Amino acid sequence: MPATMELHERTATDLHDLVAGGAVAVQDVVDALVARIDALEHHLRAWTAVERGCADRGGAGPLHGVPVGIKDNIDTADLPTTYGSRQYAGHRPGEDAHAVALLRDAGGLVLGKTELPEFAAVQEPPPPTRNPHDPTRTPGGSSSGSAAAVAAGMVPVALGTQTTGSVVRPASFCGIFGFKPTFGSIATAGVRRITTSLDTVGVLARSVADVELLTGILAGTAPVAAPAAPRIGLLRTALWDAADPCTRDAMDAVAARIADAGADVEELELDPGAGALGEAAPCIQHVEMASLLADEPYDALADALRGMLDAGRATSPAAYAEAQDLVARWRPRVDERLRRHEAVLTPSVLGEAPGAETTGDPLFCRTWTLLGTPAMSMPLHRSPAGLPVGLQLVAPRGADAALLATARWVAERLLDDGRVAVVEPAAAQRDPG
Amino acid sequence: MPATMELHERTATDLHDLVAGGAVAVQDVVDALVARIDALEHHLRAWTAVERGCADRGGAGPLHGVPVGIKDNIDTADLPTTYGSRQYAGHRPGEDAHAVALLRDAGGLVLGKTELPEFAAVQEPPPPTRNPHDPTRTPGGSSSGSAAAVAAGMVPVALGTQTTGSVVRPASFCGIFGFKPTFGSIATAGVRRITTSLDTVGVLARSVADVELLTGILAGTAPVAAPAAPRIGLLRTALWDAADPCTRDAMDAVAARIADAGADVEELELDPGAGALGEAAPCIQHVEMASLLADEPYDALADALRGMLDAGRATSPAAYAEAQDLVARWRPRVDERLRRHEAVLTPSVLGEAPGAETTGDPLFCRTWTLLGTPAMSMPLHRSPAGLPVGLQLVAPRGADAALLATARWVAERLLDDGRVAVVEPAAAQRDPG
Repeated sequence: MPATMELHERTATDLHDLVAGGAVAVQDVVDALVARIDALEHHLRAWTAVERGCADRGGAGPLHGVPVGIKDNIDTADLPTTYGSRQYAGHRPGEDAHAVALLRDAGGLVLGKTELPEFAAVQEPPPPTRNPHDPTRTPGGSSSGSAAAVAAGMVPVALGTQTTGSVVRPASFCGIFGFKPTFGSIATAGVRRITTSLDTVGVLARSVADVELLTGILAGTAPVAAPAAPRIGLLRTALWDAADPCTRDAMDAVAARIADAGADVEELELDPGAGALGEAAPCIQHVEMASLLADEPYDALADALRGMLDAGRATSPAAYAEAQDLVARWRPRVDERLRRHEAVLTPSVLGEAPGAETTGDPLFCRTWTLLGTPAMSMPLHRSPAGLPVGLQLVAPRGADAALLATARWVAERLLDDGRVAVVEPAAAQRDPG
Repeated sequence: MPATMELHERTATDLHDLVAGGAVAVQDVVDALVARIDALEHHLRAWTAVERGCADRGGAGPLHGVPVGIKDNIDTADLPTTYGSRQYAGHRPGEDAHAVALLRDAGGLVLGKTELPEFAAVQEPPPPTRNPHDPTRTPGGSSSGSAAAVAAGMVPVALGTQTTGSVVRPASFCGIFGFKPTFGSIATAGVRRITTSLDTVGVLARSVADVELLTGILAGTAPVAAPAAPRIGLLRTALWDAADPCTRDAMDAVAARIADAGADVEELELDPGAGALGEAAPCIQHVEMASLLADEPYDALADALRGMLDAGRATSPAAYAEAQDLVARWRPRVDERLRRHEAVLTPSVLGEAPGAETTGDPLFCRTWTLLGTPAMSMPLHRSPAGLPVGLQLVAPRGADAALLATARWVAERLLDDGRVAVVEPAAAQRDPG
C-alpha cells in the first residue's frame, strides 16, 4: 500500500491491514471518515443517515475495522431504512439484510445509509446527491449516494443494487469501480426488491482488491490469479451510434493501452439479433414492479414511478412471457460468445455524467442486467472536460472470479497502485448546498 | 344456484348473490362459517388465526359479504402472519398484501389465516391440518389449511401459493378446485416469497365460477365463453409410470366422460427431452431459497429446510444458470405444443392423499410451475377407497381465461351443479384431535 496517505484516502484493504497490524485504531478510522463526511456532506448529500457512534466490534474478520456504506434500500437493524420513499421516513426494519449481516460478521462497520431515488426505481425526481467531480452533474443512479460517498472518500466501499444500470452507471459517472455480480450470487434477503428477475446487489469501491474483498464475503467468490496475457474482447455493440465521442475515445484509448500492456485484444460482435434484447427490459421491469410494488400507496408515488406501474399493469401475461423468452434465448448464446475471452470490454454509459435533473441513461447497462452476467465498471478514462468515463468488463454468468482477476490485471497496469484516488469536491467550500 | 342449502355449503358466488339480493345478511354468513369452524377446527386444525369479529364493510363489490381464507404466508394488517415459522409467532405486518387488499376492496371478509409448513417451503414437519376426507391422511401442502377449510365448508374460497405443487396438490387431495395462474399475473407484494422465479399466488374453491370470480379481482382475468366442443389434449407425461393406479384410472375415466360430453379428446406427447425439465426444479428452488431466506436464523429452521438451503448454497452460479436456461428453452416450446388445444388434461398428483407424515409428492406439479403455465386441478375422480384424485387442466402462459372457460365446460358436464359439495369430516365427533 502507498506509504503516506490520509485514512479517508485508504482503501478497505489498506484499512483492514493497518488495523490488523496494529498501526491504526478502529476509532481513528471511524473518526477520520466521520470528519470527512462532516466536511463534505452539506455539499454532496450522499447519506440518508450516518452512524456517528459506529463502534469497533473486534474480531479478526477480513473486514475488521472497515467502515462501509449501505444503499438505503437494504435493511439495517440499527439505522432507519427509507427505500428512498417518503412513505418510509423513519422506518426501522427489525433486522439486518443478509448482506449487511455478512459484512458485520466479517468485522465491517456500517457507517450509514446512502441516497437513492424512490425505491431505486426511477430517475425523477433524482436524489439530492451531487457528483463529487462537478456539483452541476448527477452522480448517476440509483446507487447515487454509495457512488458519491466512495468517490469522495467518505467511506472506502459501499453496497449498491442494480435493476437496469444502478451500480455500473454511478460508478462510471463518479470515477470508481462498480461491480454487479452474476444474478443471484449475493443473497437478496432484506433487500427491497422491485423486480424478481433483475435486482442484483453490487459493490462500489476504489480498487479491484476491495471489490474482491467484499464479493468474497458476500458471495464466497475466492480471488483467482490473472492470466499473464488475458484475451480481452472489444464489444462496441449495436448501440455504438448512441455513444458520445468521449465513450468512443475511451474504448479506443483503453484498447490501445491494454494491448500495449500485453493483453490479447480482439474486436467482437454479437449476433445482430441481440440488439433487440435491451428492448425487452422495460416490459420485464414494469410488469415485475407492478407486482412487487402493488401494495405501495399509488397516489403518493413519484409520477415516473406511477407511469412504470401503469405500463406494467397494462402489459399482458403473454407479452411478459414473450419478453422473458427473448432474454432467456440469448442468455446461453451470449455466455457462449463471451467465453472465448477472459473478459469483454464494452461501454458503461453514453458518456460523461449529464446534468443533475436526471440520473443518466442506462442504455449500455440494461442488456447485461437482463442477461444476468457479471459486469465491472472500470474508471479508466476521462473526457476532455476532465470527467470520468467508465467502461465495463463483462464475462459469462458464473465467471465472476475470472472477470475480477482480469479487472485486477487491467487496473494494475492502467492506474497508479491499481486504484483511483479520492476526489476533492472543488465546490465544497464555495457552495454550501 | 341450488334452492336449499346451508350457508356454509354455499359457494362464494352463491353467497354474493344472496347478500346482494338482500336474501341473507352478511352477519348471518359470518356466523354460519364461524359456527362451522367451531364445530370442526379442533379436529381439522386448518387455521392459524380466525377473525370472529369479521364485520361487513358494505359496498357493492363482486365479493361483498363473502368470507375468504388467507394462507398464512400472505400478510394481513389485522391478523398475525406467521409464515408457518415459530420465529414469527405473533408477527404483525403493518399492512395487507396487495392480493388481500384487492379482496377486501371487492367487499371480501378475511375470516382467518390458514395453516402451512414452515415458509411454505418444506414437507416435514407437516402442519397439523387433517384431510377432511380421512383424518389419517395429509390434506396436501403447502396450502394445507386453505384446501382443508374450503373442502370442509369453513370458508367458500381461500388463497394459497405454489412454489412446486402447493396449490394443485392439496386441491387434489382435498377434492376441490385449485388454480395456479400464469406466473406473475397475481401481484406478490406482501407475500412471503421463497423463490424469485416460481412462487405464484393461487385460488382454492369448490366451483370454477368461484375461481373465476377471484382471479377476476386478483388478476383482472375476465371470464370468456367456452367453445361448444373444446379440444382437450390428454398428456400422460414421461412420469406416467410413477402414477398410482387410481390416477391412471382417473385419466382414462375422465377422458371417456369428457369425450362423451362432446369434447374433442386427443392424446399428445411432449418431446421426450422435456422429461428432464422437472429435474431442474430442486436446483432453481434451492438456490433461490438460499438467497431469499438467508436472513432467517438457520439453527432454528426445520431440518428439511436447512437441507434445502445447504443445497442451494452448494450450487454454483453456473449450475443455476444452466438450470434456468434449460427451463427457459422449454417454456416457448411447451406453450406452442399446448396451444393446439383449449386445454390439456394431465395428472395433478401420484394418487390419493398419503398418510399424514408428509404433504405428498409434487412430481406432476413441478414442471408446470417451472414453465409458468396456468394449471387448474379439477376434482373429477375418486379412488376405490372413495378418496379424491385430481387431474390438472393446463394451457399456455397467458391463456388463463380460456383455460378457466374449458374448466367450466368440463365441471358443468361432469359435476352436479358444476361444483363439489362440502365434505362432512367423518371423524369429527369421534376424534377431538
